Amino acid sequence: MRVGVADTTFSRVNMGAIAVDELKKHASVAIERVTVPGIKDLPVACKRLIEQRKCDIVMALGMPGGKDKDRMCAHEASQGLIMCQLMTSTHIVEVFVHEDEAKDERELAWLAEQRTREHAVNAVNLVLHPGELVKDAGTGQRQGFGDAGPARR
Amino acid sequence: MRVGVADTTFSRVNMGAIAVDELKKHASVAIERVTVPGIKDLPVACKRLIEQRKCDIVMALGMPGGKDKDRMCAHEASQGLIMCQLMTSTHIVEVFVHEDEAKDERELAWLAEQRTREHAVNAVNLVLHPGELVKDAGTGQRQGFGDAGPARR
Amino acid sequence: MRVGVADTTFSRVNMGAIAVDELKKHASVAIERVTVPGIKDLPVACKRLIEQRKCDIVMALGMPGGKDKDRMCAHEASQGLIMCQLMTSTHIVEVFVHEDEAKDERELAWLAEQRTREHAVNAVNLVLHPGELVKDAGTGQRQGFGDAGPARR
Amino acid sequence: MRVGVADTTFSRVNMGAIAVDELKKHASVAIERVTVPGIKDLPVACKRLIEQRKCDIVMALGMPGGKDKDRMCAHEASQGLIMCQLMTSTHIVEVFVHEDEAKDERELAWLAEQRTREHAVNAVNLVLHPGELVKDAGTGQRQGFGDAGPARR
Amino acid sequence: MRVGVADTTFSRVNMGAIAVDELKKHASVAIERVTVPGIKDLPVACKRLIEQRKCDIVMALGMPGGKDKDRMCAHEASQGLIMCQLMTSTHIVEVFVHEDEAKDERELAWLAEQRTREHAVNAVNLVLHPGELVKDAGTGQRQGFGDAGPARR
Repeated sequence: MRVGVADTTFSRVNMGAIAVDELKKHASVAIERVTVPGIKDLPVACKRLIEQRKCDIVMALGMPGGKDKDRMCAHEASQGLIMCQLMTSTHIVEVFVHEDEAKDERELAWLAEQRTREHAVNAVNLVLHPGELVKDAGTGQRQGFGDAGPARR
Repeated sequence: MRVGVADTTFSRVNMGAIAVDELKKHASVAIERVTVPGIKDLPVACKRLIEQRKCDIVMALGMPGGKDKDRMCAHEASQGLIMCQLMTSTHIVEVFVHEDEAKDERELAWLAEQRTREHAVNAVNLVLHPGELVKDAGTGQRQGFGDAGPARR
Repeated sequence: MRVGVADTTFSRVNMGAIAVDELKKHASVAIERVTVPGIKDLPVACKRLIEQRKCDIVMALGMPGGKDKDRMCAHEASQGLIMCQLMTSTHIVEVFVHEDEAKDERELAWLAEQRTREHAVNAVNLVLHPGELVKDAGTGQRQGFGDAGPARR
Repeated sequence: MRVGVADTTFSRVNMGAIAVDELKKHASVAIERVTVPGIKDLPVACKRLIEQRKCDIVMALGMPGGKDKDRMCAHEASQGLIMCQLMTSTHIVEVFVHEDEAKDERELAWLAEQRTREHAVNAVNLVLHPGELVKDAGTGQRQGFGDAGPARR
Repeated sequence: MRVGVADTTFSRVNMGAIAVDELKKHASVAIERVTVPGIKDLPVACKRLIEQRKCDIVMALGMPGGKDKDRMCAHEASQGLIMCQLMTSTHIVEVFVHEDEAKDERELAWLAEQRTREHAVNAVNLVLHPGELVKDAGTGQRQGFGDAGPARR
């Protein structure tokens, strides 16, 4: 299993390093890592990881700022990541942490690490253990903050 | 007839299991099921179900949250699902239940089940009985809550 | 000339039947009709009409609701219809009537019929009489309510 | 040099005729003209002009209305025009005049003519004299109303 | 290494000339420059630089205005640039300076120059020194105004 890890210099947390650390705990994986300036550079970086470096799945890691323009950048990047997946028929796990999700820098760093680690497990499961995800279908999983849980009837 | 069923671990209702249950009532179908983390992972999951597992149609099931960011995720996922359909010339029945459509958890669970079941019938009709849909053209059908009905002149 | 007609069960007016009726008045046409659940199902339905049933042009008929979520659905469907046209190099005449354009059900039914009939003529002209459209260039044509007319200098 | 000119019957000014008049002043050009109902029909019209009628460049001329729905239409048309350019690797000069840019009909007609004429020159330069555009890089050119000019340091 | 530089006549600063100046300081590069009218013309200009003039990377330089319509144009251009990158599997470094980011013309000119120069270095690193970007992963880099820096835990 070969996993691509693409992150940014814009992010205020080294999400790429965290992803690599977590991936290695869960599977014997070859890792291809690239860093690009910002989240809008991620779609093509992921495409190149899939096409040229033969990744089976990619984690796209970014930290959009809290302003309106930043939200629009995140939207554009997300659309590009979805299109990239459709062009390559390959999953890309998007891990975006919006700066305004956290109340301060400390929580931001915690959230970025936690969400990255939980999504690294998702990436491994998508390729190696898809049945684990089916078991969690409809259980209100969240990455980072606490799970919502299933809706009670 | 082979039907793909793709749902999420983010959803608070096991919409995939409900879809499988309903589909089996209406037709002799082979079912291919996958679960992904969130709705933005659905487009490529559907593409893989169509391309690699030879589904004739796919149900894409998800439950977006009630915040602005969640609405944007749903928008991005919907665009991806439409693009996926255009790339494969294959119908994908999108079944999204927005958390803020229901007044409480109980209604949310009911709505998710009801809409999923009604759209499972749509999926069967799209492939096996397209004439049934023509009969209902312009009659104001809704999935989940009550139908709007035709406009009176 | 072969014309595809795609409409929805969501619509509260049988726009497909109206389109078929009008098309037959204006040209000797073969008509291929399909009905899908909602407007987001129209793009792939149109692609299949063009690719598999060899339509020269398609009318895509829908009636979006009046809420924000409905407006977003209409936006997504419109983008999909434009992409479908680009992928097939074939015109699709989008006929959308927003429920909140009319003051009551009666006007809604009238508007849906009137706009559908006027756009059926556009569809015929796009394929058979393109010069008729050039004659009307810049004259402020509208479909349904009254024309705006040319701007006076 | 073969130039496509695509305009609409929705527009309240015959922008196509103005474009043709201006293009003929600046170069020995063959012109292919089509008119479509509205701006959302322009992307595929341009694609057909490029593919089937072998245009080297196309002018896409339209006049979106002033309401929210019209702005959304313009957005969708613009996205389609950009996609069409990417699919064909051919420039399309978008000339949109929003009805609410002008204070009255008279100014609207003036603005539509002026912007169309200035962009016709851009179209000729893009194909025949690209160096003329490089000379104007960063000079704050506008089409229609007065130029903004370069930023003073 | 061959670098494309695409800028606009709409911009109020000659960002293309600044990019060329900076690129030459950092590497022995062949440069292909084009100027187009506005930012919505950049996606296809970049595609042509990559396909026809064999650029390894392109800088897309633009200065959107401060009004709502201008923000929409920037959004459309950004989406086109991302799609172009996906179609060509080639990086395009988007350098957009929004007119309302600066408090006056003087700061606008400074910001356009500074951001262009910093992104020129990014372009060189993306092609020739990708390891330099990995070293800066998660350090809160910004182009133009001061860096945000890493989040303190």
